[in-house]
Amino acid sequence: MGDQIPVKVMGVYVVESKEGFAAPVVLLEDESSRIVPIFVGLSEAISINQALSGNISPRPTTHDLFISTLESFNANITHILIDDLDEGIYYARLTVTLDSVKKEIDARPSDCLALALRSGATIQIYENVISVSCVDKSTLEDLKEISQYI
Amino acid sequence: MGDQIPVKVMGVYVVESKEGFAAPVVLLEDESSRIVPIFVGLSEAISINQALSGNISPRPTTHDLFISTLESFNANITHILIDDLDEGIYYARLTVTLDSVKKEIDARPSDCLALALRSGATIQIYENVISVSCVDKSTLEDLKEISQYI
Repeated sequence: MGDQIPVKVMGVYVVESKEGFAAPVVLLEDESSRIVPIFVGLSEAISINQALSGNISPRPTTHDLFISTLESFNANITHILIDDLDEGIYYARLTVTLDSVKKEIDARPSDCLALALRSGATIQIYENVISVSCVDKSTLEDLKEISQYI
Repeated sequence: MGDQIPVKVMGVYVVESKEGFAAPVVLLEDESSRIVPIFVGLSEAISINQALSGNISPRPTTHDLFISTLESFNANITHILIDDLDEGIYYARLTVTLDSVKKEIDARPSDCLALALRSGATIQIYENVISVSCVDKSTLEDLKEISQYI
């Protein structure tokens, strides 16, 4: 557990393996420049990248619809927290507020990030998760931005 | 506009073109056995198929999270309506009810179907949309179920 460390989304990238496989990865960075890579699905990667770049889809994406549905009831996503890492899988929770009532819902980090970037919610990671998952910047030199692929 | 015609989701299939392209398609059927094919994105197709087959993902999908977030506030998706077809693009709206207040939100049919199948919401199409988009069953003989691909 430990402290909740605020992070920012640096960008969405693609990792290419020597065998030719490619996987989307989101990089998160805290104020101490520690970087946490989180592998995500392709559609979630595209959605996160859309939110980061401000590109609005002609028709609402699933995450756009999620936000507009909550907004129609004046509910807001106020906070997301990446709270666990177990056997290589990150876990997160989404905090939604309606009429001063807060609800926390179990979620994948990818959905949380796509929603947080659309709603302005704060993004945090538990210190014990960040301390075991942050990587050296030199390992990220070969990453390409996902915008080069889509 | 016209009447709102109830439909059921027959299944999620893949259309293969002679050139080797493959596209996921959802088939909807009304009580008169009229069939409406709606092409959807791959991730939405997988999500609709999961809901149809009752396969629960180990981690919540985006649509699972959408439903659990609404349920946490006792909000329900009560109705989806495919209400327009313009230049080959279907339009839909999602009706969500919270404390007797109903909200209608602009959405893609694919998201509406993935959510309706998870929430038990009724699925309807305007008669003027179904009448111009329904196809003959013989055109669908070569379709393969998406479960053969994923």
